[in-house]
Amino acid sequence: MDEVLLKENERIDDLQCKGLKIIQNPKGFCFGVDAVLLSNFCEIKRNAKVVDLGTGTGIIPILIAGKSNAEKIYGIEIQKTVADMARRSVQLNNLGERINIINEDLKEVDKIIDVNSIDVVVSNPPYMSPLGGLQNPESLKAISRHEIKCTLEDIIKITGRLLKHNGHFYLVHRPHRLVDIMCLCRKYKLEPKKIRFIHPNRNKKPNLLLLKCIKAAKPELKFLNPLYVYNEDGSYTHEIYEIYGKESINSF
Amino acid sequence: MDEVLLKENERIDDLQCKGLKIIQNPKGFCFGVDAVLLSNFCEIKRNAKVVDLGTGTGIIPILIAGKSNAEKIYGIEIQKTVADMARRSVQLNNLGERINIINEDLKEVDKIIDVNSIDVVVSNPPYMSPLGGLQNPESLKAISRHEIKCTLEDIIKITGRLLKHNGHFYLVHRPHRLVDIMCLCRKYKLEPKKIRFIHPNRNKKPNLLLLKCIKAAKPELKFLNPLYVYNEDGSYTHEIYEIYGKESINSF
Repeated sequence: MDEVLLKENERIDDLQCKGLKIIQNPKGFCFGVDAVLLSNFCEIKRNAKVVDLGTGTGIIPILIAGKSNAEKIYGIEIQKTVADMARRSVQLNNLGERINIINEDLKEVDKIIDVNSIDVVVSNPPYMSPLGGLQNPESLKAISRHEIKCTLEDIIKITGRLLKHNGHFYLVHRPHRLVDIMCLCRKYKLEPKKIRFIHPNRNKKPNLLLLKCIKAAKPELKFLNPLYVYNEDGSYTHEIYEIYGKESINSF
Repeated sequence: MDEVLLKENERIDDLQCKGLKIIQNPKGFCFGVDAVLLSNFCEIKRNAKVVDLGTGTGIIPILIAGKSNAEKIYGIEIQKTVADMARRSVQLNNLGERINIINEDLKEVDKIIDVNSIDVVVSNPPYMSPLGGLQNPESLKAISRHEIKCTLEDIIKITGRLLKHNGHFYLVHRPHRLVDIMCLCRKYKLEPKKIRFIHPNRNKKPNLLLLKCIKAAKPELKFLNPLYVYNEDGSYTHEIYEIYGKESINSF
């Protein structure tokens, strides 16, 4: 494992998966359950070319590198300091040959990556609407959480350009945006094919959704069984343990 | 209760709700859980004008008449023999002043009912794609189940015409059509506002959905808690008992 420089407030967290680690700044935006569930939901074929739009600390490229035989994973991140942290995490994990962190506006990334060339696009985008006046819209956290630098339509539009015919798009998002997601995906010829709702427990409505779209596919959406995070006694469900591994559940 | 004539193969079923009854032909299409759940899901204000598109045996107008103070409920049914059966059920329940069964193609119903005049449109439409060669497309069952005489788009389009500004649309449908439903509703300015998924039990994916749209409303979809039909031991859940009433659960 290469040695890397940590900056102020940064720490190295163990991902409890094949020895992988990640650099995070607890005062910035740390990865959440969303990124782990999305990485787990993706099916990545051997030698695939993958793009992660809005990669943040690089958590998704690192997890996908760990679980798949993807040839190349591009992580696109508009925030310079966050992209720099992601690059050092890639170096820390010795994944420099497979992961390429690109500090670029994702709306412009078709200038760097060929259109119709990518097998899989993944994204864990900002979920929230642009801010009102309360928060600083230039803060790292705000940019990761709110649609300040890009909208959902920007992400879906560029995905439609990057993907090959029959390429796959994996998205994690909030259920209250379901109509926008469905209509925008269809607008850009990314047909929703598989959906899974994540519920805090069996008696609660979902608070996350995982979606798989296929470029230029025929309509017909398949539902997967719901994923529940907690049992009724407050313990994690068996399936969450399987996704996370018993060791790492404390950091969940 | 008025006396009505029963035709060959017809029988009278007790709805176990305020003494309401319905005429059905067990060799034709009998109402299902869908119609009962949809009627229960609808919120109908006093004096509302309601339209049920594809009313079949009239189950939804009769249940809505029983549970609400709607002023007028129009049931639109293209099949003459089915509309006739629905009319006799209305007569049987003495509801002729509140329910009007119209034997008409729903695509043409804006010639009979004023556009922008209706408070609530409900529909439990055919779920299935048009048939291949196997079944007789003129059979009563086939017309009730398959998109032979009307498509989902026909239903949503005419709903958009009939409803007042801010009028409500309640739909029951299958989850595999979710993308079509969302995109068509938005196309015709019926914004999906509330959704509830029905699961056979807690470990299964949903097999029905209930949707409320509001004409010309702002986007933002609210999820309700899932509705489970069976407990793990195979008995009905408490909520299903509440919707159906313990007496009628056997006919479920």
